[in-house]
Amino acid sequence: MKKLINSPQTVLADALRGIKAAHPELRVDLENRVVFRGERPRQGKVGVVSGGGSGHEPLHAGYVGRGMLDAACAGEVFTSPTPDQILAAARGVDAGAGVLFVVKNYTGDVLNFELAAELAADEGIEVRTVVVADDVAVEDSTWTAGRRGVGTSVVVEKIAGGAAEEGEELDAVTALAGRVAGSGRSMGVALTSGTVPAAERPTFDLPEDRMELGVGIHGEPGRHRVPLASAHRIARMLVEPILRDQGAPGPAIVMLSGLGATPLIELYLMYGEVAPLLAAGGIDARRILVGDYVTSLDMAGCALTVVMADDELLRLWDAPVVTSGLRWGA
Amino acid sequence: MKKLINSPQTVLADALRGIKAAHPELRVDLENRVVFRGERPRQGKVGVVSGGGSGHEPLHAGYVGRGMLDAACAGEVFTSPTPDQILAAARGVDAGAGVLFVVKNYTGDVLNFELAAELAADEGIEVRTVVVADDVAVEDSTWTAGRRGVGTSVVVEKIAGGAAEEGEELDAVTALAGRVAGSGRSMGVALTSGTVPAAERPTFDLPEDRMELGVGIHGEPGRHRVPLASAHRIARMLVEPILRDQGAPGPAIVMLSGLGATPLIELYLMYGEVAPLLAAGGIDARRILVGDYVTSLDMAGCALTVVMADDELLRLWDAPVVTSGLRWGA
Repeated sequence: MKKLINSPQTVLADALRGIKAAHPELRVDLENRVVFRGERPRQGKVGVVSGGGSGHEPLHAGYVGRGMLDAACAGEVFTSPTPDQILAAARGVDAGAGVLFVVKNYTGDVLNFELAAELAADEGIEVRTVVVADDVAVEDSTWTAGRRGVGTSVVVEKIAGGAAEEGEELDAVTALAGRVAGSGRSMGVALTSGTVPAAERPTFDLPEDRMELGVGIHGEPGRHRVPLASAHRIARMLVEPILRDQGAPGPAIVMLSGLGATPLIELYLMYGEVAPLLAAGGIDARRILVGDYVTSLDMAGCALTVVMADDELLRLWDAPVVTSGLRWGA
Repeated sequence: MKKLINSPQTVLADALRGIKAAHPELRVDLENRVVFRGERPRQGKVGVVSGGGSGHEPLHAGYVGRGMLDAACAGEVFTSPTPDQILAAARGVDAGAGVLFVVKNYTGDVLNFELAAELAADEGIEVRTVVVADDVAVEDSTWTAGRRGVGTSVVVEKIAGGAAEEGEELDAVTALAGRVAGSGRSMGVALTSGTVPAAERPTFDLPEDRMELGVGIHGEPGRHRVPLASAHRIARMLVEPILRDQGAPGPAIVMLSGLGATPLIELYLMYGEVAPLLAAGGIDARRILVGDYVTSLDMAGCALTVVMADDELLRLWDAPVVTSGLRWGA
């Protein structure tokens, strides 16, 4: 296992120290493992909190900042954050207008955010939750009942964060987040497995001539293990299941994310193959992201996310955002 | 070789189509393989052009946009762009105020930019060149006489681009670029080799228990092949040679770039180790970048760049920039 780490046991703690050192504009609670915006919560603003297992950076800490998340809870690598962590986040961001939890659909995450919501309610903090379940690859998976939550989370966090920043109330922010979550579909492919530091070996074995189509972001099995194919053919395998599921054509926000070990030149090359297929399928890619947005440690591969977006969602997408992962307009 | 490509022979052409599809705000000249800003050159503005072999994305095309480069010439993977490409870039960006070439110190790049500068001069385009040679690892290398040019290029491009955007004249922009180039030092380490698509095999062999300290961004040999070490010890190996070379302490722009296959969680972890060593060495990290800024295909590892920066350079660093690789303030 070749990694830039000190010890498999201290990866998260050490990485949080690094985030703290690199981002003086954030407040990193090393004890609770929560990354907060540096400034105090603005009275009357809805707080937006997400989190999950680590190893998917920049998700979620990279999306903390003005116009997006108020806090992100970092679980151990590929492990749900605890209810205590999430409660600490809710307490830290509550400014009297309630808190929205954005949760990826993994059983542990859903349970722990639910528990934290109950604990927060006991303290008088009003919490709503939106679960993202956008991965069209499989219906149930290793750690998930129903579809897994992946790339659409980024768009949910951006649009909910934008609406909260503009002063929308909790119900409105929740409704928007729910609408985005319902409009997103994703599909990924792995060329190699990532390696969880504590496991010290790759999560799965994949022969040199095979790829895992529909892989999960923790290395969960996908639809098929298929022969390695050209980017042109892989693009078809990603776009077709999304189109089949997306329903109507229309304007969309499109994200092609690397899974951690795939260089940008390959991602752009893939996007060159994906773009005409989306257009032929009636998807009008109005906003486009190509890069590492939701990763899976050092897995090689990519995942395509298509979120249908009307004018209201596009306007909130374009609203100013100042995070290390997404930044524009301010 | 597991890559998201169609054929080793068409990687660059296919990737440029992807950049074109993903970035409607840019103008991609597929024939000359030059990425331009989408808007026409502003009359009287100095043009800033860079380029080099591909495989280092987002360098250089990812730095084309308002406040940074006007054009980037993409050579084949790890191959210098031709004088014709560079001339096409100079012609495309010239707006009567001359053009600055930002060139990384590799023999082929330096020669071809020099030839292009002569051809441009024949057409009445005034050209200045700043060569970046910031890699403290080795004095001469596989494709370089003198030090190699690496991460400081990003800072040169940002500050020269910012000054050009503000209307500075060619001599002033050149002087600033030269000052930044002279103030930057870099040092990298590889845990694995990258694979050039056309070669179909890793550039070098590195046993499971070894790393290449001072590696070049094309996989050129570094200082030593040493046993794999903890992030804590690797940080020392990167910081010490830079400090030894940097001269005086002071404020700096610090960049820790992944080399392509190293996930962000490891880069933040490394930065957590680097930060206290820089501080102890008198480096006041006033601006910090952690992520993939100058890569080497799918090489695992990272490189540290420290550019000493006074108030004038920091102000230009902070000036608005709108590119896919760096974006803020606008």
